[in-house]
Amino acid sequence: MLTGDLFIAGERRASPTRFHAHDPALDAAITDTGFAEASADDLADACAAADAAAQPYAALPLDRRAAFLDAIADEIEALGDALVERACRETGLPAARITGERGRTANQLRLFAREVRDGQWQKLRIDHADPARTPPRPDLRLRMIPLGPVAVFGASNFPLAFSTAGGDTASALAAGCPVIVKGHRAHPGTSELIAGAITRAAEATGMPKGVFSLINGARAIGEGLVADPRIQAVGFTGSRAGGEALMRIAAARPRPIPVYAEMSAINPVVLMPHALAARATALAEGFVASLSMGAGQFCTNPGLILAIDGPDLDTFTTRARDVLATLAPQVMLTPGICAAFAEGKDRLAQSPHVTPVGEGVAPATPGQGSAALFTIAGRDLLADPAHLHEMFGAASIIVRCTDRAELTAILTALEGQLTATLHIDAADHDAARDLLPVLERLAGRILANGWPTGVEVTHAMVHGGPYPATSDPRSTSVGTLAIDRFLRPVSYQDIPTELLPAPLRAGGQAGMLARIDGVWTV
Amino acid sequence: MLTGDLFIAGERRASPTRFHAHDPALDAAITDTGFAEASADDLADACAAADAAAQPYAALPLDRRAAFLDAIADEIEALGDALVERACRETGLPAARITGERGRTANQLRLFAREVRDGQWQKLRIDHADPARTPPRPDLRLRMIPLGPVAVFGASNFPLAFSTAGGDTASALAAGCPVIVKGHRAHPGTSELIAGAITRAAEATGMPKGVFSLINGARAIGEGLVADPRIQAVGFTGSRAGGEALMRIAAARPRPIPVYAEMSAINPVVLMPHALAARATALAEGFVASLSMGAGQFCTNPGLILAIDGPDLDTFTTRARDVLATLAPQVMLTPGICAAFAEGKDRLAQSPHVTPVGEGVAPATPGQGSAALFTIAGRDLLADPAHLHEMFGAASIIVRCTDRAELTAILTALEGQLTATLHIDAADHDAARDLLPVLERLAGRILANGWPTGVEVTHAMVHGGPYPATSDPRSTSVGTLAIDRFLRPVSYQDIPTELLPAPLRAGGQAGMLARIDGVWTV
Repeated sequence: MLTGDLFIAGERRASPTRFHAHDPALDAAITDTGFAEASADDLADACAAADAAAQPYAALPLDRRAAFLDAIADEIEALGDALVERACRETGLPAARITGERGRTANQLRLFAREVRDGQWQKLRIDHADPARTPPRPDLRLRMIPLGPVAVFGASNFPLAFSTAGGDTASALAAGCPVIVKGHRAHPGTSELIAGAITRAAEATGMPKGVFSLINGARAIGEGLVADPRIQAVGFTGSRAGGEALMRIAAARPRPIPVYAEMSAINPVVLMPHALAARATALAEGFVASLSMGAGQFCTNPGLILAIDGPDLDTFTTRARDVLATLAPQVMLTPGICAAFAEGKDRLAQSPHVTPVGEGVAPATPGQGSAALFTIAGRDLLADPAHLHEMFGAASIIVRCTDRAELTAILTALEGQLTATLHIDAADHDAARDLLPVLERLAGRILANGWPTGVEVTHAMVHGGPYPATSDPRSTSVGTLAIDRFLRPVSYQDIPTELLPAPLRAGGQAGMLARIDGVWTV
Repeated sequence: MLTGDLFIAGERRASPTRFHAHDPALDAAITDTGFAEASADDLADACAAADAAAQPYAALPLDRRAAFLDAIADEIEALGDALVERACRETGLPAARITGERGRTANQLRLFAREVRDGQWQKLRIDHADPARTPPRPDLRLRMIPLGPVAVFGASNFPLAFSTAGGDTASALAAGCPVIVKGHRAHPGTSELIAGAITRAAEATGMPKGVFSLINGARAIGEGLVADPRIQAVGFTGSRAGGEALMRIAAARPRPIPVYAEMSAINPVVLMPHALAARATALAEGFVASLSMGAGQFCTNPGLILAIDGPDLDTFTTRARDVLATLAPQVMLTPGICAAFAEGKDRLAQSPHVTPVGEGVAPATPGQGSAALFTIAGRDLLADPAHLHEMFGAASIIVRCTDRAELTAILTALEGQLTATLHIDAADHDAARDLLPVLERLAGRILANGWPTGVEVTHAMVHGGPYPATSDPRSTSVGTLAIDRFLRPVSYQDIPTELLPAPLRAGGQAGMLARIDGVWTV
C-alpha cells in the first residue's frame, strides 16, 4: 500500500514531481506508484522540524529513547512479507538475503536501545571541588550531549541495514539526534515502508514530530541537506565520488560539520605460505564464496588477494577459476552499478600487466553481472597502483609477489581499507607478527583465517578505517562505538545540584559507567 | 645558552636564514640570538623522522611512554629561572604568571603520564566467539591505536601550557603519536628551551628519535607541514583566520585529516536578576579582575556581559567602570596583538549603537594595552551581531536586555563558545533551568557563579565547543579526554592469541577499564 509520499516530521506529504522505482531483474520501471521528489520547501520544513525536535528529544529520559528504538524494530518486523517482497523487487537481491538483513536491522536497533540504557556513551565524569587548594579547585562534571540533527544518506547495497533505518539512523537516534534521511533512489518503496514503521514507532512512543523525516530528491536536494545550517553531522555510505562531494560541501559551510562517509575499499587478503601450502583448494573455495555473495556488492568484498608466487598459489588460482566458472550470473542492484562493474572489468582486462584468470557464466539479461578474476605480478602493481580502484561487484585480483618484502611493500602502499585479512598457520605466525603493524595502519578491522564479508554488529566491531575507506578513521559505522560519532562533551562547573542533569548529580550514575575523581566505577 | 637551532628528530640543526625574537615591553628586537628558519628540506626531514618513529613509538610499553612524559616535566622544571626569564622577556607576561604556567605545564604532562598508565583510552573491548550460533559468531577484540604524526601549532598567550610542550603536544604524545611543533614566532627562545627539555627526556628514556621535532618558519612552512602526507592530525590554538586557513589545507589534501583548532570566543556571562540585585558590586569587581588578568589575553576572557536592564545593572556597570579606571595598562604579547586590540576597540566605539563605559589608565608605551568597557542595548545587538567579533584583550561589552526573552534570543543567536557563565541565586534557578539547554547548545563549558578564566586540567574539563570556538566540538584540548583526539579504533577478528596485542589477550586488561561481552570491568 505505497503512496509515494515524503515523510516530513511525522506527516506524509505528496509532491507534483515524481519518479519511479526500477526493477533490476526485469530492467524495467515499477510503475504502480510514483515517488515524490522533495522541493526546497520540503527540505527546509524537515530541517526546521528536526531543529525544533533536537532539544526535546535529547531531554527525554533514556528509557523513552530506548523504547523508541525498540518500537522501530517491532514495526519493521510487523511489515512482514510486504517489506521483503518490495526490497527484493527493487534490489534484485534474493528473499533469504533480505530476510536475514531485516533481522540484522532489527537486532541493530535493539542493540542500540540496550546501549542507550547502558549509558556509558555519556562518559560521565565528576571531579569534586577542593576549596582548600590554592587556587580553590572547582567542581567539574562532564557528560556527552547530542550534536543535533543528522543527515543520513543510505546505501543501495543494504536497503535495510544501511538505509532508512540502518546503522547511521539507529546510532544517531541512539545518541539523541533527530534524523533526516535522504532516501536512496534505488529502493524508494522499501524506504517508504521503513519510514512508515519509524513514524508509527515515533507516534506510539510519544517522540517529538521532527525526530525523523524522509525526503527523496535529486542530487541538489541531498547537497542542500548537507549545506543546511541546522544539520550538525552527516552519515553516508556509497561511492567515493559521492562521499567526497558531500565532504566538500560540509567543509565549505560557514560552520563546517563532520561527515562520516564510508566510501570504498578493496579489502586485501594475504595468503601466507604455510596456510596456502596446507589448504590452497579450501582457501580458493572460501574465497570465491565470499567474493560472489550478493553479486559481490559488499563494501568488504575481497577485491585483492596477495601471496608469494609458486605452485601453491597456482593451485589456489586454478581452483578459484574452476569454481568461478560454475557461478551463475547475478542481478545487480542498479543498471548504473551493473554498467560500472562491466566497465571496471574491461578496463582492468585491457591493462598490459593484468591477465584474466577466469569468469563466471556470462550474463543472460542486461541487469546481470558475472564474477571475474584477474592476476598481476606484484612488481607491476607497485609500478602502477591505478589497478587498485574498487570494482563494485564480484571481481578480484590475485597479486603474485616475488617475496615477502614485495608483499609488504604492496600492503604499505595501499590506500586505507575497511578490512585486511591474513590466512595463517602456526608456522606463519612469526611472519604475520611483522605484518600486523602494517595492517593496523592500513585498515579498521584485521581478520585471521576468515573472509571479510560478514560484519558482526557488536561492541568490538570496527567498520571504518583510514581514508578513503572512510572519511574519518576515528570512528566506526557498525557496532556500539558508532554512537560516539554524534556526541560532544559538555563540562558543568560549580552548577548547583538542582540544575545539574540527573546523571551528573550525586548517585545519579547508579548502574552506569562513570569516572569519579579519576576512579572508574560501574 | 640559546643557539637558535631547529630540533629535527633529536638533533639540533642550524639554518642560514634567521629571525629575531621581540621584547614587547621594550618594543625592540632581542638580538643576542637569531633563530633558524626551517627550509622545505628541514620540514621533509622532520616529517620523515616522525613517520619512521610512529610505529616504534606506538609499540613501546605504556610504562615507557608514561616515563617519557614524566621526564619532560622533570626536564622543564630543571630549566629553572632561565625559562621563566626568557618567557617573560618574550611575552611581556609577569614572572608569577609564567611560574604558575610552568607548574601547570608540568602537572599536565604528569597527568597524561598517569592517564597513559590508566589505559582506559584504549577502549578495550572483547566479544567472545560463539561457534554454536548460526552463522558462527567470530571472536572480536577492539582497541584504540594512535593516528600517527601530529602537527602542533602553539599559542602566543600560553608560551608554556599551550605551546611547544603544551596540551596538544602532551595529549598527542600520550596517545602514542610523534609530534612536530611549528614554533610560535612570538617566543622562539622559550620554544628552544622547551624543545631541549623534550629532546633530553626522549634521549634519557630511549624514545625513537623522530618522536619530536621543532621547526620555526614563515607561514609557508606551517602550511607545508599540514599538507605533508605523513601528518595525520593537527592541533592549533590561535586566531580564527589562522585556524580556518589550516582547515582549508587539511580538507584539500588528497587524504584529508582532522584539524583541532581552538579559534575564538567571547564567553558570554549572564547576570541573573536575583544574583545581580544581591551583589552587583562584588560581581563587578570579580568581572574586572577576570577581564583584565593577563592583559585579557585569554581565550576564555569574559567579553560579553548580559543582564536585564535596570538599576542593579547600573550599579554593576558603574562599579566596573570605577575599578577599570584604576587599572594600569599592561604589556601585550606582540605588537600585532596590541595593534589589533586597539583597532578592535576603536571600531566598536565608532558604532552608533555602542556607548563607551570606561577605560583603564592610558598606555604609557607602544606595547601596552588598556582595558575598556562598552555597553549596547540588546535589540541593537540582535539587529547587528557584527558587534560580537572577539577583541583579543581586556575589552568587554555589557548588553542591556529588555527582558529575559531578549536575553535568551541573544544567547540563541551567538556563535559557538568555549564557555558560558551564569551568576545565579536560588531564586534564579527556575529561570536558569530554562536557559541551560540554550547554553549547552552554545558552549563546551557552563559555569555558575564563577568566571571563565582559569581552566582546570582534569578529567571532567572541556576546553572546546561549537564552531568557531573550535573546529571540532566533539573534542576538548584540555583534560584527559583530549587523548581521544589522536586515536582510532581497530578491531581484531579471530586473531590467534600469540599475535594479539597484549592488552587484548585473556587477562591482559588487568587493572584497566574494559568491556567484555558487553560488561564493563575495571
